[in-house]
Amino acid sequence: MPPRTTLTISPQTTALLTPYLPPKKTTLHHPPRPFTTLTYATSLDATIALAPATQTLLSGPESKALTHYLRSQHTAILIGCGTAIADDPSLNCRIEGVGGYGGEGLEGQPRPVVLDPWGRWDVSSESQVVKLAREGRGKAPWVVCMGDVGEERQNVLKDVGGKFLPLGDMVEGRGGAGVWSWKNILELLWNEGVESVMVEGGGSVINALLEPESVGCVDSVIVTVAPVWLGKGGVAVVPEERRDGEGKKIAVGRLRDVRWVPLGEDVVVCGRP
Amino acid sequence: MPPRTTLTISPQTTALLTPYLPPKKTTLHHPPRPFTTLTYATSLDATIALAPATQTLLSGPESKALTHYLRSQHTAILIGCGTAIADDPSLNCRIEGVGGYGGEGLEGQPRPVVLDPWGRWDVSSESQVVKLAREGRGKAPWVVCMGDVGEERQNVLKDVGGKFLPLGDMVEGRGGAGVWSWKNILELLWNEGVESVMVEGGGSVINALLEPESVGCVDSVIVTVAPVWLGKGGVAVVPEERRDGEGKKIAVGRLRDVRWVPLGEDVVVCGRP
Ligand SMILES: NC(=O)c1ccc[n+]([C@@H]2O[C@H](COP(=O)([O-])OP(=O)(O)OC[C@H]3O[C@@H](n4cnc5c(N)ncnc54)[C@H](OP(=O)(O)O)[C@@H]3O)[C@@H](O)[C@H]2O)c1
Ligand SMILES: NC(=O)c1ccc[n+]([C@@H]2O[C@H](COP(=O)([O-])OP(=O)(O)OC[C@H]3O[C@@H](n4cnc5c(N)ncnc54)[C@H](OP(=O)(O)O)[C@@H]3O)[C@@H](O)[C@H]2O)c1
Repeated sequence: MPPRTTLTISPQTTALLTPYLPPKKTTLHHPPRPFTTLTYATSLDATIALAPATQTLLSGPESKALTHYLRSQHTAILIGCGTAIADDPSLNCRIEGVGGYGGEGLEGQPRPVVLDPWGRWDVSSESQVVKLAREGRGKAPWVVCMGDVGEERQNVLKDVGGKFLPLGDMVEGRGGAGVWSWKNILELLWNEGVESVMVEGGGSVINALLEPESVGCVDSVIVTVAPVWLGKGGVAVVPEERRDGEGKKIAVGRLRDVRWVPLGEDVVVCGRP
Repeated sequence: MPPRTTLTISPQTTALLTPYLPPKKTTLHHPPRPFTTLTYATSLDATIALAPATQTLLSGPESKALTHYLRSQHTAILIGCGTAIADDPSLNCRIEGVGGYGGEGLEGQPRPVVLDPWGRWDVSSESQVVKLAREGRGKAPWVVCMGDVGEERQNVLKDVGGKFLPLGDMVEGRGGAGVWSWKNILELLWNEGVESVMVEGGGSVINALLEPESVGCVDSVIVTVAPVWLGKGGVAVVPEERRDGEGKKIAVGRLRDVRWVPLGEDVVVCGRP
């Protein structure tokens, strides 16, 4: 059992982030989809993990608390199965006062969502998200998948109140492999009652969302930068290159309405893509 | 002739940087070497130019003014010949009040230094640094080289008061090519009266200086981060990987005494390696 450590964050800090968070009253997108926040922690050399399939602690305690605060402000938190496999993450919110950490029920806990089309993530009763759900300290996970995952896995989720969400209709992604379009992923979540989702990684999810075809689905970007260089060979957030009509290389994207919030040793940048 | 635009910067901003700048009274290193500041502007995806051998404007007007202020605080400013070839940079300080921009003589202008062992940079009377020196708006450049560069080039520099500085004794660099050790480069500059040097790029110079073998030569690091992603295929600042005694991958380096200074749309991070 992980230690029941709660995190705290100052109201001054959270106030700075408010303009970038899901609005209290949902404004409807057309077609309807959740308010979508892309968030990750990076080094100065754009690396989010020292090596593939490993977890690297990048941000300090202050920005970690911020990430947990962000989780409490979203209905769901989404990751790719690469992160689920590598990190066995908790994906709950451990801010003092939310459900499971001093608060009522599961109030303030986001719904963990994992994209796992082919069942690569071996979710079991020992997975952190499942354990936390069992202990009443996080919501039960939803796993988006292509189809039948077998009864055993179904039961693992069902036992704690989670479920598999089948989604068909893949499109061709980078490198030719099939992927779901972000439009479809977000529509699925919307239909399940998710009004806001925080996308937390990993590398391939973030890189895909930063590309021009999908960045239109993103409402806010919140990135923590730690003053560290991890070096070559890690998991990098560097989107595919982009060219204009004449074939000239151009920037992939720029943030608007930018705010930099220094937080401990790190900085957090908020903006709209 | 480039427009005689001067830049301004607020005393509040410069005050935040003072702890990271060369001290007024030189503290002697053993062996003696200049106070060395590593500085560059990067995107969120650790890219400093969209493509090799091209220049990319990354930082906004406020952080550009800051870079120019930093130049005025150092005796010399150093780049690799890759940057000299790609950017034909001015390498002078255009802050209002320095020599050539309202001030006396060349007061506050840094000495441009280019590392060009094999004479790849075709320095001519039309090169920006040479033109600016001729116009009394910048100091004449010094070019560190392996040996004889021919009379014509010698004269280009001599005419404006610059010179070639021969340096021998290369060591084996990354990929096997010969390079000067940073210890030797800085010793050469010290012997030429350079008390402080700001290293401004490009990619291979920065990556080399961030490595454990040379980072000990660096006193301060000042990096501007712009809220933009440039995408794959650019000039990246990602140092070579580093491993501990057991072969485990570890971070290449981390900044101490960190200060983040938001400046316009960008942030400037200062620290000690
Ligand atoms: N620093 C941070 O903020 C942070 C945050 C999270 C994770 N990380 C790190 O990131 C690394 C993991 O990154 P990663 O790139 O390997 O994995 P990932 O992005 O977490 O997961 C990628 C996988 O998720 C599935 N997926 C993603 N998008 C999909 C789509 N549109 N449609 C269908 N399936 C989709 C695919 O599974 P299939 O291959 O099975 O098709 C894909 O290979 C770990 O090292 C982790 O520690 C860092
Ligand atoms: N955003 C920014 O802050 C910024 C700043 C500056 C430059 N840039 C960009 O960076 C790019 C240029 O980077 P780059 O990596 O191609 O070139 P570079 O780092 O400017 O120059 C590299 C060359 O300098 C010489 N050199 C460097 N270190 C040496 C050493 N220790 N000993 C001997 N010679 C040494 C070598 O010349 P030889 O190959 O001849 O041996 C080396 O190939 C350009 O696109 C430029 O726009 C960006």
